Amino acid sequence: MKAKVHVTLKNGVLDPQGKAIQHALGSLGFSGVDDVRQGKYIELDLAETDAAKAREAVERMCKELLANTVIENYAISIEG
Amino acid sequence: MKAKVHVTLKNGVLDPQGKAIQHALGSLGFSGVDDVRQGKYIELDLAETDAAKAREAVERMCKELLANTVIENYAISIEG
Repeated sequence: MKAKVHVTLKNGVLDPQGKAIQHALGSLGFSGVDDVRQGKYIELDLAETDAAKAREAVERMCKELLANTVIENYAISIEG
Repeated sequence: MKAKVHVTLKNGVLDPQGKAIQHALGSLGFSGVDDVRQGKYIELDLAETDAAKAREAVERMCKELLANTVIENYAISIEG
């Protein structure tokens, strides 16, 4: 199965990388960009064939390694 | 409007960051992880209210700044 994980900073956590992108876009002449937030996107190929078990495993991976749950949220989607 | 951009490495391009995650997951006892690819996920808040114009602007942002189109693909989704 394939798992797609989005790791994003929680609301209220400063995102200097997003701000840098926003300023760079401004310098390049793109106006009307009110806010930019950058997160991580991780694709995993899993040997597991049961969707529920795969989701549970990826949930544990997020908590233990992929996301810093103090400042980051994660979202998991499992595909066949 | 809100734009969500996924920037991923093209197939065939080595992804050392993904490999590092894969090995770290193995060290933590997660077996059955066949492959890991890491990409970027960028959320933009745009002042533009026309979806077609917003998509066109984000397309240009991707080409000029957000993605290195030699080695990376990008996917854009626009939300109301």
